[in-house]
Amino acid sequence: MADKGPFLTSCIIFYLSIGAAIFQIVEESNWTSAKDTYIQKKEEILTKFKCLTKEGLDEILQIASEAAGQGVAITGDNHRSTWDWSNSVIFAATIVTTIGYGNIAPKTTNGRVFCILYGLCGIPLCLVWLSTLGSFFGDRAKRLSQVLIRKGISKKIQFTLTALFLLWGLLVHLVIPPFVFMLVEEWSYLEGMYFSFITLTTVGFGDYVAGVNPDIEYPRLYRVFVELWIYMGLAWLSLFFSWNVHMVVEAHKVLKKKRQLRHRH
Amino acid sequence: MADKGPFLTSCIIFYLSIGAAIFQIVEESNWTSAKDTYIQKKEEILTKFKCLTKEGLDEILQIASEAAGQGVAITGDNHRSTWDWSNSVIFAATIVTTIGYGNIAPKTTNGRVFCILYGLCGIPLCLVWLSTLGSFFGDRAKRLSQVLIRKGISKKIQFTLTALFLLWGLLVHLVIPPFVFMLVEEWSYLEGMYFSFITLTTVGFGDYVAGVNPDIEYPRLYRVFVELWIYMGLAWLSLFFSWNVHMVVEAHKVLKKKRQLRHRH
Ligand SMILES: [K+]
Ligand SMILES: [K+]
Repeated sequence: MADKGPFLTSCIIFYLSIGAAIFQIVEESNWTSAKDTYIQKKEEILTKFKCLTKEGLDEILQIASEAAGQGVAITGDNHRSTWDWSNSVIFAATIVTTIGYGNIAPKTTNGRVFCILYGLCGIPLCLVWLSTLGSFFGDRAKRLSQVLIRKGISKKIQFTLTALFLLWGLLVHLVIPPFVFMLVEEWSYLEGMYFSFITLTTVGFGDYVAGVNPDIEYPRLYRVFVELWIYMGLAWLSLFFSWNVHMVVEAHKVLKKKRQLRHRH
Repeated sequence: MADKGPFLTSCIIFYLSIGAAIFQIVEESNWTSAKDTYIQKKEEILTKFKCLTKEGLDEILQIASEAAGQGVAITGDNHRSTWDWSNSVIFAATIVTTIGYGNIAPKTTNGRVFCILYGLCGIPLCLVWLSTLGSFFGDRAKRLSQVLIRKGISKKIQFTLTALFLLWGLLVHLVIPPFVFMLVEEWSYLEGMYFSFITLTTVGFGDYVAGVNPDIEYPRLYRVFVELWIYMGLAWLSLFFSWNVHMVVEAHKVLKKKRQLRHRH
């Protein structure tokens, strides 16, 4: 493996450099115009309210920034508790799955210490659980294929089943959910897809989080379904990865055998 | 494996419920007081600036909220570009490592589409790279132990080396870095430890991010070192996990052999 190290390191440096350049090209002008709009609007506010000095406005923004830093929504008067039990369950889930949206995060010293201890046990537990869940579904799929093979359907069925497994995964985790989010969260299709991808890869930027808009009355059990969908997705990915690793290991064995045979002849 | 499923599922439900209750106890009062302070300070602002109506203040907060949503810092006039090339490299790294702090995230449609495609290739690439890096260090450690064994030092050295490996990991990744962050970022020791833990587990809440405070003049190469420290930490964790899995597999084999021997007698 170690001989691949320099090549892979070059790959990752190249990949990060190119990616950064593209992100810069795509995003920088949007950021600049948002910044200019913000500066201009601040000036408009100062001319609109004569008694408000620049220092006064800075004071207001400082207050808002501090409130946001403590997890308080700065706009609207509809302050739903961030730390009620159901929100806390979802927060705990963002630790153990390592999604970590960060729209909620502990602000007290005790909370942070507990967060470290909680993750220390919780992350391995969740990994084991998800891989067990994944292999449970994998076993079911395997049995189904065996039953079908015994019934005389050609061995090509295994290939078809793998393709179906991939297709099903893509449908359930990337293609269909955005439609649900369009209806419930009023996001665009792309926003829903972006949220799904960022969540199931456990990147979890937290710019889009399902079920937290204070202006939306969510259907009952909506958040439960979102949570279950996340776990199913992660289990599917875990199964997908273990299958891939399995296939790579198998391919490696076959290659090794072939090489040994060649050496004997 | 599948028979462990119901037990593990109960475990995870229990773990999330208990964790949520503790987080609620620890964090809710802090949030409530922050919210009350915010409401009170907003009222003080309204009495201080007579010409400013409640609607006017809401307008200001709306503007600030929109700017924050586009990644613009709402306080201060020191608008460093979020999307210059070096920031973009770090952003790209938060995707491929799945840390995803989210203090920077793409806001344009093109940026989001590219983000999905970028992660699709980048996350597996980074995983492979980190595990290669991990096994590179693992090989070095193994060779060192073999040299030491050949030199006649007792076989207990392997146990000592494993202990040293764990100790080294803890020191380099959790105990020492907070001191550096105390100096450079002016965080408390606990904040530095919280940041280190949340980063290296790839949870990445984004409430603490190293190297982004616009009021601090960072030492040159500081951010490069932080990035390298993150990769080293993730490679160390990858090695740690593969060793653990290896040990579990070995223990399983030993148990299986013992059981087979028992059956034969
Ligand atoms: K994450
Ligand atoms: K995150």
